Amino acid sequence: MPRYKLTLEYDGTGLVGWQRQKTGLSVQAILEDAVERLCGARITVHGAGRTDAGVHALAQAAHLDLPKPYPARTIRDALNQHVKPHRVAVLAAEEVLPSFDARRSARGRVYRYRILNRRPPPTVDAFRVWHVGRALDAGAMQAAANLLLGRHDFSTFRDSLCQARSPVKTLDALDVTRQAEEIVVEARARSFLHHQVRNMVGTLKLVGDGSWEPDDVATALAARARSKGGPTAPAEGLYLVEVVYPAP
Amino acid sequence: MPRYKLTLEYDGTGLVGWQRQKTGLSVQAILEDAVERLCGARITVHGAGRTDAGVHALAQAAHLDLPKPYPARTIRDALNQHVKPHRVAVLAAEEVLPSFDARRSARGRVYRYRILNRRPPPTVDAFRVWHVGRALDAGAMQAAANLLLGRHDFSTFRDSLCQARSPVKTLDALDVTRQAEEIVVEARARSFLHHQVRNMVGTLKLVGDGSWEPDDVATALAARARSKGGPTAPAEGLYLVEVVYPAP
Repeated sequence: MPRYKLTLEYDGTGLVGWQRQKTGLSVQAILEDAVERLCGARITVHGAGRTDAGVHALAQAAHLDLPKPYPARTIRDALNQHVKPHRVAVLAAEEVLPSFDARRSARGRVYRYRILNRRPPPTVDAFRVWHVGRALDAGAMQAAANLLLGRHDFSTFRDSLCQARSPVKTLDALDVTRQAEEIVVEARARSFLHHQVRNMVGTLKLVGDGSWEPDDVATALAARARSKGGPTAPAEGLYLVEVVYPAP
Repeated sequence: MPRYKLTLEYDGTGLVGWQRQKTGLSVQAILEDAVERLCGARITVHGAGRTDAGVHALAQAAHLDLPKPYPARTIRDALNQHVKPHRVAVLAAEEVLPSFDARRSARGRVYRYRILNRRPPPTVDAFRVWHVGRALDAGAMQAAANLLLGRHDFSTFRDSLCQARSPVKTLDALDVTRQAEEIVVEARARSFLHHQVRNMVGTLKLVGDGSWEPDDVATALAARARSKGGPTAPAEGLYLVEVVYPAP
């Protein structure tokens, strides 16, 4: 039973998220259907993490065990044929050691959040950005973001459905940059709590539009209560851009 | 009857193009319906140029005459409300002299063409790029593009439906750049023939994948016959990115 790692890109629009669910179509189900067409067996595809409904991925990682060996290129190209017409693509497939586990072996995750900051609504980027019409101050957002760096109890930014054992996480990077009409927030950590990135972005947006001072974010963090944080930013602006593994 | 210039962004997917047609929904019809909701009258919106079905715009220009003056911001914001749910946005509205004509006053047009050059199909960029799986040599494409610069009879790259009086145009720029998995072709001219950019890109792609040598493009140009050019690149990769006007 050779094990393979997949690197995946997908458009989360209209999907229920990574995980298989009875309520709608998931990335996992699309892939498992494609794998069944490739090798005739029902095989579980294990993701590095669950992305929510509407969240995109530029490089999600997953692993699966196939009943017999295939050339890595064949797996990639065959799955890309079989997932059609869904907006899911296998960017790369590679054989890995049986000890590799997409979730447990990961040493870091990088998420990107795109905010379209202008009065007119998005057109070509509809469902790919969060549209915020009020002018945002990226410098103030970065000042607030800096207060979240490091090891903290992130309960203020944790969804009530989060199943993590501990609310303590270490945030390695939270960079806010403006590129013309767009503000991009990039977050890096070993792992995140459920909705943590979207809750942090929703809070930074309050600083950006002047509703909050940067220091209010430190106060919210210290309160360790979800009710003290800002609203959850919408899923459509969020991209899982990298899952980091130790060098083999 | 004050005249206004509009700067427009739109996602061409699913639309019949700029121009009003009986066969489906056009950008012009969407805008004229919105204008009617704003001022209660049926008014023609004149575009700087017609974009084809499926072609996008990041900054198309247009003009219209309203029955009475409105603040420019009101026009922009009201039209953006009234065009919903269509993926058309008014980026800016400004009052202009009655002599301004979106098409006739224009001194240049800039188009961008995006090619996703990798084996796996697009996901988040579906309908926004041309997917070319075979590896393309951007350097060879640029060498061929250079042979098209300047004033030429562009009949080889002219659609049979083109209504321009003359096939002679001056191509001011045709830049091919690679950005990771994407090849971007940017074309600048005072004006273009119908399908000229897509026909040039379809031909440059033949050079990129090794089917043609760069010199074959000069031969095709000299033949002044559409049958000697490469195929028409699909609409979904094309963006009208700027219409240039003389400084007021």
